[in-house]
Amino acid sequence: MTDVRDIALSYAHQNRDRFLADLRELLFIPSISTSDEYKAETLRAALWVSDRLRGMGIQNVEVMPTGGHPVVYGEWLKRPGAPTVLIYGHYDVQPPDPLDLWETPPFEPTVRGDLLFARGASDMKGQVMAVLHAVEAALKTGQMPVNVKFLIEGEEEIGSENLGAFIKKHAKKLKADVCINTDAGMIGADEPTIVYGLRGLAYMELRVYGPAKDLHSGLFGGAVHNPAQALTELVAGMHDKNGRVTLPGFYKKVRKVSEQERRAFKKLPTSKKFFLEQTGVPALWGEAEYAPNERVGARPTLEVNGLLSGWTAPGSKTVIPAYAMAKISCRLVPGQTPEETIKQMRAYLKAKAPKTIRWELIELHHAGAAITDLESPGVKALAAGLQAVWGKRPLFMREGGSIGAVVQLQEYAGVESVLTGFGLPEDNVHSPNERLHLPTWYKGIDALIHFLFNMR
Amino acid sequence: MTDVRDIALSYAHQNRDRFLADLRELLFIPSISTSDEYKAETLRAALWVSDRLRGMGIQNVEVMPTGGHPVVYGEWLKRPGAPTVLIYGHYDVQPPDPLDLWETPPFEPTVRGDLLFARGASDMKGQVMAVLHAVEAALKTGQMPVNVKFLIEGEEEIGSENLGAFIKKHAKKLKADVCINTDAGMIGADEPTIVYGLRGLAYMELRVYGPAKDLHSGLFGGAVHNPAQALTELVAGMHDKNGRVTLPGFYKKVRKVSEQERRAFKKLPTSKKFFLEQTGVPALWGEAEYAPNERVGARPTLEVNGLLSGWTAPGSKTVIPAYAMAKISCRLVPGQTPEETIKQMRAYLKAKAPKTIRWELIELHHAGAAITDLESPGVKALAAGLQAVWGKRPLFMREGGSIGAVVQLQEYAGVESVLTGFGLPEDNVHSPNERLHLPTWYKGIDALIHFLFNMR
Repeated sequence: MTDVRDIALSYAHQNRDRFLADLRELLFIPSISTSDEYKAETLRAALWVSDRLRGMGIQNVEVMPTGGHPVVYGEWLKRPGAPTVLIYGHYDVQPPDPLDLWETPPFEPTVRGDLLFARGASDMKGQVMAVLHAVEAALKTGQMPVNVKFLIEGEEEIGSENLGAFIKKHAKKLKADVCINTDAGMIGADEPTIVYGLRGLAYMELRVYGPAKDLHSGLFGGAVHNPAQALTELVAGMHDKNGRVTLPGFYKKVRKVSEQERRAFKKLPTSKKFFLEQTGVPALWGEAEYAPNERVGARPTLEVNGLLSGWTAPGSKTVIPAYAMAKISCRLVPGQTPEETIKQMRAYLKAKAPKTIRWELIELHHAGAAITDLESPGVKALAAGLQAVWGKRPLFMREGGSIGAVVQLQEYAGVESVLTGFGLPEDNVHSPNERLHLPTWYKGIDALIHFLFNMR
Repeated sequence: MTDVRDIALSYAHQNRDRFLADLRELLFIPSISTSDEYKAETLRAALWVSDRLRGMGIQNVEVMPTGGHPVVYGEWLKRPGAPTVLIYGHYDVQPPDPLDLWETPPFEPTVRGDLLFARGASDMKGQVMAVLHAVEAALKTGQMPVNVKFLIEGEEEIGSENLGAFIKKHAKKLKADVCINTDAGMIGADEPTIVYGLRGLAYMELRVYGPAKDLHSGLFGGAVHNPAQALTELVAGMHDKNGRVTLPGFYKKVRKVSEQERRAFKKLPTSKKFFLEQTGVPALWGEAEYAPNERVGARPTLEVNGLLSGWTAPGSKTVIPAYAMAKISCRLVPGQTPEETIKQMRAYLKAKAPKTIRWELIELHHAGAAITDLESPGVKALAAGLQAVWGKRPLFMREGGSIGAVVQLQEYAGVESVLTGFGLPEDNVHSPNERLHLPTWYKGIDALIHFLFNMR
């Protein structure tokens, strides 16, 4: 007798072409949440997802308002007594800039060989559709083993600013035994991965003001503090010579990396060579006493995400800019909070900013750090599902990225998340030519079908 | 009997409205030399000037090719035995950015009260037209006292890159007893000013490269040296805590400010208060052992003219940029050369740039520093002309700006320049809402008529 799980798997295998066509449809929609200009397109993506959920038999599907882009909710609760799995995803994507570096347009999904190129292919429309297809396979073959709820948001790429309030308000509705979140990546196509720790984020914009207007550098240079120079001095001072962040108290509450964890990090295939190959830098950088994957996974960092001042077009203009700006974000680890980090930044600026300039710090967004229990049923069901498809135990790791939803679901609805994903390090996430490795994606759909049946 | 000089002055007074209308015509042409996009408009300004010269009776007018924007040449040599005055000017202007800060469009010259608003009104279409009108007044009243030649270039705002070669090639044609250059400003509307020293310029673009492409800061932050951060470290290190430039050897050949010069600087009305009011900064900055006007006039400086990296639009993007750029320029004093300064910058970068990034230094343009003989007939004729109109001795000063033509005319054609101008510090030169104070401009035309007759 064929196992019901095998019927679902067989359905998925037979529908691979249509699954891909579905994903491409969603990828055509430029749902860039950062930009007001794309607000209508972002809503269009939400409506597309809600239609898709209805079409596969999910009930009570709603596009629910938030303070920003809406949340798509849906549920299928016809298996009383069985666990309920909350499926998290986001339908929004990063801006595609710089556009001229894309080989094919970011919102014209294109298959070349095993790869599907489009903004959002890997982060995370591909991942959202993988779970939807897994649930569809179980539903359509009549043997759905668990109850499911969907929470597909539209603001992940701008820090899930309104998701906290939404989860708080709808905590009962979102109640579940576990949340499956496929917004984490894999270390390599042969390395199924479960992420049990995530870094938090505090994103700021530092503005330095000097003269009331742009000045002629010949007439005033030497007498006033150039704000672009003052900005470089402030930003440069945020790290010491050993790559450590100098904000006062920054490391005070950082949870130490345990010996056990250090051993786990050593087992990961993310060696120095891996980071050199993935990034193309001439040499690695960072806190010398930690391995690169520890720095990324378990240590807090401060990054300059953008700089802007004065004359930036080709050629020369001899101007003393009136103003200079830096976008700065800190990745946080358990023990740190975005609020405290912002306070530390303000303390640093108050102490270091010279009286020759004025400054302003704008808070752009926040996300806490999180760690998940490795012994939970969700983690075990997912680990077994990944092993069934890849034939090996998944790697367990802490990851550098921040996913606000994980912290907020834990805090406001008491739902713990188990994180995985089928994106690869070379997927160009947040970069030009973002892509998805289709063979890995199909395996991911299978693993998620296993996960659903393992939860039973 | 009416003096011939008075007839010329009377002509100028009667033609003020038409003089203004002429200037406005030229200001309507967006001759932005920086940008290829405005190449045709820049040529249009050259043609307009050449037509104007022909119209007032100047002979052998030519729009002469250079490696870049053309030079307008013309001459009137019908006074054998009298001195020949070379008239220097430039018909190109700075870009008008940021456009949104202009109260009226930059290329729609608008009079409000005593002020004429337009890009180039003060720097230096207004100044060019002041000399043309003075010469016209002398020519049209039939009593032109000296021979004149015109050299009106189109690349001053991009460092007069091709002017040196042009002057070298046409040295004989440009031969003159003195060059009058009205591209220097006044200290105040009641302070006629002669500039006898000019700072040179070395303009560079520093590019710092890190990863091969933009990276997700969560996946790689902490393991690679962020190029935007590395750039801030390099740029911040170019000054020490006392505001001194740290490039190796930067001050070695700097001509010391003599006690006599320091006394002259003290007599200038450019006090600390003047700089605070003109700039709007909360506090002045710079080398403590020099007064602000000494720092601007007689000391070399290093300025950051622009910064660009990563995400600079509103909102947040968690990117580690692949690349970061700074536009940097040094103002040089006699003793320094742009070539040596660039070498010093390369030496600094070689010593300080970490191995975790790659860098590249692009030379954008060069100009030497210059000092003029205070006892020359040209300086004396101009000083007397200014005194006749303003009723007081002009101030003699060294200025911060660079004018390549001054150095090149001295070096290649043996012509010394005498510098003045009728622009004011509050004219917003190189800034939005550039303007010209018309009463001062009319006085300037009169002073230039006096200058021509004083040269006789």
